Amino acid sequence: MTRPRQHVVIIGAGFGGLAAAQSLARADVDITLIDGRNHHLFQPLLYQVATAGLSPADIAAPIRSILRNQANVRVILDTVVGVDRAARRVRLADGQPIGYDRLIVATGAQHSYFGNSDWASHAPGLKTIDDATAVRRKVLLALERAESETDPDIRHALLTFVVIGGGPTGVEMAGAIAELTRRSVSQDFRSITPHCSRVLLVEAGPRLLNSFPEPLAAKALAAVAELGVTVLLGKKIEAISDRFVDVGGIRIPCHSVVWAAGVQASPAAAWLEAAADPAGRVLVNDDLTLPGHPEIQVIGDTAAFIGTDGKSLPGVAPVAKQQGQHAARSIATGRPTPFRYRNHGNLATIGRHRAVIDFGRVQLSGVLAWLLWCTAHIYFLVGFRNRLDVGVRWLWSYLTFERSARLITGPTTKLHGEQP
Amino acid sequence: MTRPRQHVVIIGAGFGGLAAAQSLARADVDITLIDGRNHHLFQPLLYQVATAGLSPADIAAPIRSILRNQANVRVILDTVVGVDRAARRVRLADGQPIGYDRLIVATGAQHSYFGNSDWASHAPGLKTIDDATAVRRKVLLALERAESETDPDIRHALLTFVVIGGGPTGVEMAGAIAELTRRSVSQDFRSITPHCSRVLLVEAGPRLLNSFPEPLAAKALAAVAELGVTVLLGKKIEAISDRFVDVGGIRIPCHSVVWAAGVQASPAAAWLEAAADPAGRVLVNDDLTLPGHPEIQVIGDTAAFIGTDGKSLPGVAPVAKQQGQHAARSIATGRPTPFRYRNHGNLATIGRHRAVIDFGRVQLSGVLAWLLWCTAHIYFLVGFRNRLDVGVRWLWSYLTFERSARLITGPTTKLHGEQP
Repeated sequence: MTRPRQHVVIIGAGFGGLAAAQSLARADVDITLIDGRNHHLFQPLLYQVATAGLSPADIAAPIRSILRNQANVRVILDTVVGVDRAARRVRLADGQPIGYDRLIVATGAQHSYFGNSDWASHAPGLKTIDDATAVRRKVLLALERAESETDPDIRHALLTFVVIGGGPTGVEMAGAIAELTRRSVSQDFRSITPHCSRVLLVEAGPRLLNSFPEPLAAKALAAVAELGVTVLLGKKIEAISDRFVDVGGIRIPCHSVVWAAGVQASPAAAWLEAAADPAGRVLVNDDLTLPGHPEIQVIGDTAAFIGTDGKSLPGVAPVAKQQGQHAARSIATGRPTPFRYRNHGNLATIGRHRAVIDFGRVQLSGVLAWLLWCTAHIYFLVGFRNRLDVGVRWLWSYLTFERSARLITGPTTKLHGEQP
Repeated sequence: MTRPRQHVVIIGAGFGGLAAAQSLARADVDITLIDGRNHHLFQPLLYQVATAGLSPADIAAPIRSILRNQANVRVILDTVVGVDRAARRVRLADGQPIGYDRLIVATGAQHSYFGNSDWASHAPGLKTIDDATAVRRKVLLALERAESETDPDIRHALLTFVVIGGGPTGVEMAGAIAELTRRSVSQDFRSITPHCSRVLLVEAGPRLLNSFPEPLAAKALAAVAELGVTVLLGKKIEAISDRFVDVGGIRIPCHSVVWAAGVQASPAAAWLEAAADPAGRVLVNDDLTLPGHPEIQVIGDTAAFIGTDGKSLPGVAPVAKQQGQHAARSIATGRPTPFRYRNHGNLATIGRHRAVIDFGRVQLSGVLAWLLWCTAHIYFLVGFRNRLDVGVRWLWSYLTFERSARLITGPTTKLHGEQP
């Protein structure tokens, strides 16, 4: 007698969930992959969409297409609203509940405004394509309004861009905004010049990139400064409105603020009635299972997993991918084993030809690091066409400083009416 | 004594307005180009964005970038709300009024629902990038919902796509939707198969492409039929809702309707207090000036210009371009002359390897026509990068049937809640 075919339900088609599904390709299971969006998003390049370097379709691919040839997967576009652990069922916003034998929760993280939820509307973060096009619209509209503004104070405020958070995302955003506003568009406007615009990067801690070694953080600081970014360290945000940001007792008039300061896990802990760390991440066993529920595994940004150094693993793509593969393996083999993270290196890029990479023993910075970063990111992009396209596009924009995706789409009229 | 430098104001940066601005590059004038959007849009390919073949940035370029090196142009992002003919000033929604010596009105056309303005929300048309991504969202979401729908009647309705209007846009949309829903995605879904989906093309007149010769229209009809499109001729739309379309006394349950049936000119006639034809187009003199106002010219879809055959010129890009160039020439030389349209050919494409072209004496159809159409469209695309990119992308999607831009973005949650 063969045992009955198991039904594996995976919630979330980010790096973790997708890796889990793909790793189960040859396993004797039926898989249902549920996501609230129809596309897998290559989040590390989202800041390029926000700063008009790439188009949304360059960094996103339909989940169905990616898994087209994997016959044991069914993809469902729906929003999960809860998990019934006793009945082993996932509840959906639109469709019928779905039963599972094994469940992998890979729902990622969302922004955390540290209790100031009203900041969200003034300082969008970067998690989805709609977030990125919203930031792009905000930045490009500020330039447009500055071009026709005659009051020098208002113009100065329109040309002040504030990025909050000095981690990799904040550093990348600040560098890219500086290049966009100070260099790429400089010949396109008649009234504003590159020297008018100001990009501030605000970090509450004592230095940038606190997950990197100190020398690389210092190099990153020098590199963003050279691009024209003003870095404010050890400064806390006190207030954000659509006209100003209050930082360390100083009011900075500005219209474009981007949030890259904090994330919290999705509400998975509540669905699972599970213990969570202060960032909302579910506390898991060393084999990624939920305590008391060997049939449930939690991976990626949704899980709080303590690494060999005693610290929680960072919320980056490689952790999610490896955990997805690990969860799949323990399902396929039926033998849960402890997860161990293999850190292949930590990267952050600054502007169009600088990056810092921490390989542990070896540290790299400058142009060589940037080239390595480019190669790695193009390589890991999903789908051959995107790789080719993004390669061509980057080469082109590197050679010309052109920002090809400088489109203002969406509710322009509303933003337009919002006079300074 | 030199005469004072004239100030030319151009409203609209479509094919007409942009051509006028570019043709005045060497003229001794100052130009202000006003548009409500920051990008020039290559409208003939908008249906490709709506059917996920191209990304918005492939067919749109920032107006500022296009005119970057033309020192005598200033670009303003603003919405025109009126024209004060006596004071020779243009009134803006946000900015100060702008005076002019010469005015070129090139504001294009918008959809006309023949008095049924409530149809607009159920049957979006194709004029802007936001229109196109809205149609894309609608079509892709219908497929997603059909995949998880168990009621066969509702599934059938979700997989029924209706295109209203048998002109070039309608034919192109119907062909592209048929390829998307019946071929490109056929391997991506588990429950729905290509045979489930149905594309209807509804035309009130007796045949498709009524601006083309009869033999070409017949070829177009055969070509769309081969792609699986059902063509309903001589059928009028009686009602449109979010659940059905009433056509010629029959109720067709469906969730995705695209409007390609009628346009009307922008409100320019009202601004100018000018006489207009029933489609709202301003009646102009043979030199494109407004009767009684030699300082005002109206061009493109905004103007009703009677051609040599006694009929109004069609609302296509070549007419707008040539009129823009003509208007510029009469300003530059100071000598108004009658405008004559040089028709270089009329094109429509059907699916991924068919087209019909009417050169007057010569008529072309099939694959050769399609290749010519591709070449012409890539050639006329604004900006070198876009040409290269779109070329690569088309070649790729031609070889693989891949639809790379299959992203559902925007207010998914809302559409998601709209249960059948």
